[in-house]
Amino acid sequence: MSFPFVKGHGTHNDFVVLPDLDGRIHDDLGPELVRALCDRRGGIGGDGVLRVLRGDFADGAGWFMDYRNADGSAAQMCGNGVRVFARYLAAAGLVDVAALAGPLPIDTRGGVKPVTFCDDGEFSVDMGVAAVGGLVDVSVGGRWHAARSVGLGNPHAVAFVDSLDEAGGLATSPFYCAEEFPDGVNIEFVVPQGEAALAMRVFERGVGETMSCGTGACAAVVAARYDGVGQGGAAVGAAMAEGGGHMSGVFSATSGRPGCEGGPATYRVQVPGGVLTASVDERGHIHLKGPAVLVAEGTWTG
Amino acid sequence: MSFPFVKGHGTHNDFVVLPDLDGRIHDDLGPELVRALCDRRGGIGGDGVLRVLRGDFADGAGWFMDYRNADGSAAQMCGNGVRVFARYLAAAGLVDVAALAGPLPIDTRGGVKPVTFCDDGEFSVDMGVAAVGGLVDVSVGGRWHAARSVGLGNPHAVAFVDSLDEAGGLATSPFYCAEEFPDGVNIEFVVPQGEAALAMRVFERGVGETMSCGTGACAAVVAARYDGVGQGGAAVGAAMAEGGGHMSGVFSATSGRPGCEGGPATYRVQVPGGVLTASVDERGHIHLKGPAVLVAEGTWTG
Repeated sequence: MSFPFVKGHGTHNDFVVLPDLDGRIHDDLGPELVRALCDRRGGIGGDGVLRVLRGDFADGAGWFMDYRNADGSAAQMCGNGVRVFARYLAAAGLVDVAALAGPLPIDTRGGVKPVTFCDDGEFSVDMGVAAVGGLVDVSVGGRWHAARSVGLGNPHAVAFVDSLDEAGGLATSPFYCAEEFPDGVNIEFVVPQGEAALAMRVFERGVGETMSCGTGACAAVVAARYDGVGQGGAAVGAAMAEGGGHMSGVFSATSGRPGCEGGPATYRVQVPGGVLTASVDERGHIHLKGPAVLVAEGTWTG
Repeated sequence: MSFPFVKGHGTHNDFVVLPDLDGRIHDDLGPELVRALCDRRGGIGGDGVLRVLRGDFADGAGWFMDYRNADGSAAQMCGNGVRVFARYLAAAGLVDVAALAGPLPIDTRGGVKPVTFCDDGEFSVDMGVAAVGGLVDVSVGGRWHAARSVGLGNPHAVAFVDSLDEAGGLATSPFYCAEEFPDGVNIEFVVPQGEAALAMRVFERGVGETMSCGTGACAAVVAARYDGVGQGGAAVGAAMAEGGGHMSGVFSATSGRPGCEGGPATYRVQVPGGVLTASVDERGHIHLKGPAVLVAEGTWTG
């Protein structure tokens, strides 16, 4: 079995890109092959696979990002992955960036995502509208924290902490209420860095601590704006207490409140693997901006 | 910067192979590039780099394995790496395996190593003679173990334990006497599996627990033979006690005793990443046999 691949990463969230424009090479891409490719010692290594397919032009998107997690499961979207996907399209000459009149629509299992090729070489993705839920309790390393639930297609719980060292126990799984998050939850530990900057560590469900999480960075910004964290001295505890202590974290896109209440429109988010920028526009859409790097291209021969 | 690479592994000890036959591509291979290549998220990922150079034919070796650890430092030899190196030479057509009359000499910083291309597709490497030292104390996960020191170019301490679960604390660094091992030590935790088989976990100095360690598998076999472990019910504790309890682990190739005292000549050694075979010949040379797999070839563009 021999086929082409490209290796790349966005803030050190890394992917094996599989060009398969007409769906003929990986027609039957199974979890075994995805796991073999993502195996960091027996394969190429990656957090996931981005299969590049021509999209259904009927919905306006010329490209479909078939994203698979390293464990072989199919996933809806990946904020870091879609930037690497866009970088690949440009590098392979599949998209003429200079000729683009606006964002490039890229189809995903989580819907069509418009991707902007920025002048500074980075990529900005419209992640849509966030849904804000209640406060939940999460625990890591023996300490409990109040956390704001935020939905961005996937569930998040954002805990503002005094120091990222508090999250030292991230190597062990955090605790949360399984009834509130029956499908698990991504947990962000966030320290405000002044008015429009956050530093964060993230525990991704099913994975553990990771170098970066695009939707997690967006969730952190949504929670910071919603709870007024880092803005003119509003104490984290007070903001959280105002929410009424522990409430159900269950929300949906319709029941949740849109996360565009206030605070700066653009935040710099420092993750262990690099720097992301998340902005909220006048429609409440979250835009995730960051780098995407391709480091190697080759042929799988395994 | 753009150059070719191959990715491969031996029992999941994995490497970025850099063909550089005439030394012109990576004339100035610095630690920064090695670290970038071996970075598992920002690069290709590997435990080390195997640079492939034509050797000095004067010493009989047509090839030189320039081995670098993932941290960028140069290293002498790697029992798993030299098999991957040999596999690359054959796959690239640089060696005509059918025409080989005997082992292929491959030069390393640890001397010339003869490599046999076995009929079963595996590779066997003559690792030379081991030096057996005294008993030392090592501790991991809160328990102390007596361990046999063995030298194979690099230092090892082999502890026979009742269960590999005992080594559960390998995620944390083990303790040992820094005066005995000023340059650190590789520690093997070994459970005999009948007369001629061992199961082992290994803590590599400067790295932590790894999937496989070629010299470690050889050291485990040397210690098992020397101390009569697993042979007709000789108790581990008794064999160790006979050695006089704690003694200095310091040894050298000349002061150490050759590790070919007795026991089966060939052992199967199960490591987390696969199965190795280590044999002792009539001259006391240790031969390490195992698989080598190439999974991808490509171009670094990072």
